[in-house]
Amino acid sequence: MEDIYGNLIGSLAQPNDSRICLLVMDGIGDCDNDGKGTALQQARTPNLDKLADESALGLSVPIDTGITPGSGPGHLGLFGYDPLVYKVGRGVLSALGIEFALTPRDVACRLNFCTVDADGNVTDRRAGRIGDDENRRVLQRIRDGLEPPEGVEVLFETVSEHRALMVLRGDDLDDNIPDTDPQRTGVPPLDPTQETDSPTAKIAQGIIEQVGRILSDEKQANMILARGFAKFPDWPRFPDRYQLKPAAVAGYPMYRGVARLVGIDVVSQPTSAEDICVEAGKALAEHTFVFAHFKYTDKTGEDGDLPAKIQRIEEMDAALPKLLAAKPDALIITGDHSTPPSLKAHSWHPVPVLLKAPSLRGGDGNGKGYDEVNCRFGQIGTVPAKQLLPLAMAHTGKLEKYGA
Amino acid sequence: MEDIYGNLIGSLAQPNDSRICLLVMDGIGDCDNDGKGTALQQARTPNLDKLADESALGLSVPIDTGITPGSGPGHLGLFGYDPLVYKVGRGVLSALGIEFALTPRDVACRLNFCTVDADGNVTDRRAGRIGDDENRRVLQRIRDGLEPPEGVEVLFETVSEHRALMVLRGDDLDDNIPDTDPQRTGVPPLDPTQETDSPTAKIAQGIIEQVGRILSDEKQANMILARGFAKFPDWPRFPDRYQLKPAAVAGYPMYRGVARLVGIDVVSQPTSAEDICVEAGKALAEHTFVFAHFKYTDKTGEDGDLPAKIQRIEEMDAALPKLLAAKPDALIITGDHSTPPSLKAHSWHPVPVLLKAPSLRGGDGNGKGYDEVNCRFGQIGTVPAKQLLPLAMAHTGKLEKYGA
Repeated sequence: MEDIYGNLIGSLAQPNDSRICLLVMDGIGDCDNDGKGTALQQARTPNLDKLADESALGLSVPIDTGITPGSGPGHLGLFGYDPLVYKVGRGVLSALGIEFALTPRDVACRLNFCTVDADGNVTDRRAGRIGDDENRRVLQRIRDGLEPPEGVEVLFETVSEHRALMVLRGDDLDDNIPDTDPQRTGVPPLDPTQETDSPTAKIAQGIIEQVGRILSDEKQANMILARGFAKFPDWPRFPDRYQLKPAAVAGYPMYRGVARLVGIDVVSQPTSAEDICVEAGKALAEHTFVFAHFKYTDKTGEDGDLPAKIQRIEEMDAALPKLLAAKPDALIITGDHSTPPSLKAHSWHPVPVLLKAPSLRGGDGNGKGYDEVNCRFGQIGTVPAKQLLPLAMAHTGKLEKYGA
Repeated sequence: MEDIYGNLIGSLAQPNDSRICLLVMDGIGDCDNDGKGTALQQARTPNLDKLADESALGLSVPIDTGITPGSGPGHLGLFGYDPLVYKVGRGVLSALGIEFALTPRDVACRLNFCTVDADGNVTDRRAGRIGDDENRRVLQRIRDGLEPPEGVEVLFETVSEHRALMVLRGDDLDDNIPDTDPQRTGVPPLDPTQETDSPTAKIAQGIIEQVGRILSDEKQANMILARGFAKFPDWPRFPDRYQLKPAAVAGYPMYRGVARLVGIDVVSQPTSAEDICVEAGKALAEHTFVFAHFKYTDKTGEDGDLPAKIQRIEEMDAALPKLLAAKPDALIITGDHSTPPSLKAHSWHPVPVLLKAPSLRGGDGNGKGYDEVNCRFGQIGTVPAKQLLPLAMAHTGKLEKYGA
């Protein structure tokens, strides 16, 4: 598959001094709550509403109709990378999530500690969900006992509970390695060398066998299951692709990681709405693209806490003037996906978008504000997330004409 | 071509007990009639209108803008199979239309009886449109006289008038066989072995030559023209693809056939609106997906009978409570295409869609009902037909997250 649209945009990109800010209110979209409307509809947001009156509105489809995005694909879309073309492996995402600095020589995978019986059959795929301290202790035993294969460095990091990260570092490693998690109990872990001719799979198999011996006297975490072997992807870098000088303002590891994945440097790590707006404003002085990430609209959605989600939206609304004071030439406010409190999870619902920029066809707010329903009727329409950055680039003169 | 979206949905499908009902009012869409609006706009539909107030609305594009679908592609889209990827050959459609049970060893084609002169040139491509009885008589002569090739069974069935079905049954048959219909008179039938190296084409040629000899003393139907050689397609089966337990409630052969084509069993064959609603309700007790088909909204459109189409819509509206009583978790009401009475034919107009499901952004009806104009402003938007089933699956928790 080819990212036809993204590549076309890249071929038309031309640099100028205009500054674009992408403010991601993570998981901002919602569905109705008992007939009282979405969190955005219920929140008091005078600044967003005023902005909506002067902005183009629309809805963003992160992946495609009905598809619920993870955070990785959700953000790749907003960065203009087709999330069906640019796939992030689970191993790489695990590394991003704990801010492990992957190199192009690395193959990363997600590890689960598990329990196996005397016959080697899995009895608990999560080793009784051991705690972080236990995870660290067992991982240190592995580090101390493992004899790494010739020419390969093997790195382990605790993630949380029974979850860990394994990274193989060496020359010419590949990631064509099947999962070893059998996805059920009563059977042994799968052999990673089955159904592949990957030389790296043999290396992984040898390491996993060693780990089994090292941990054989453990009661709970006496084996590991590996999933999602993946190399650090060789993708076009954001600054090269778009002729933009980008910066990320993001307080949580996953989002800093996704930014770095496409070559966007992280300049600040605030978490509160006010700090994010202040820091994004500062970053706009030195960069032509600033990605600012606000986590709490997603977190409160995942917690199923509608009042808290409303409050977080109001916090961001109150902080907005600090960002507006930096006068970005184009400002996109949207989310990477919806996170309805009623679902306590990410969802597939299209995400409200606001674009403040030059050369609009008037403002779309009509005094009705920035929410899921009003945005549906705006001039942007309902579009794939990957088209939003190009649209902001168009409005700021950063895209050449196609053809003569 | 690959069904990228459909395959992605398939890869995300997870089973649960929620039940989806797809009610197809065949050819439901219309265009304006002399300034008085569409059939749906003119019909009195209190139940549909109330449902619209609680549902998401939108428009479904069966194939693509401006493209008028046949019944096969129209339904494949609604089943989530991209109709530009999954193409049904004319021979297979002919078999479906008369409920001929094709097997994977079969190659089917559509036959037209024709008249040829002493030089073998076609003088009438439809053999004077002979009647069904004459068709059956001549077909029996062929059955009696034909010596089938080694290892191949040759089956014939009357369709109607000058139309018949021929099925070659055997091992390793292929369908890479050109049509023999020259599409004009004054020339002989085309040679099916031209422009192909298909071994089965030679078999077909031999059969057609035999038929010519057998019928040489007939005055009208003294030859056959073959079109649309096609094998029963080897497609992903609906239950496997979507992790759904499906059932079809459909009274007409073509629609039962299209359902079976993707592996949906037919559990009941009602034709009246009331019986369809009752039977669909029953089927929902035992299945997680029920396709219910109502033919008469299409038939009246094809007849150019606007008052009758309005009446059929009102019949279905009156019957709806019997379906709603079964409390499907998600209910899609739409059509496979539009059939405007003013055109007396299928058309390309997008088709109104109603989706009643959990986790909506409120209802879209606003007291304005379920029709072509009001549906245009609903939260579903204007989307390809193939996205409707996935959307219902999303709303009922049947799709996993994409990426982490």
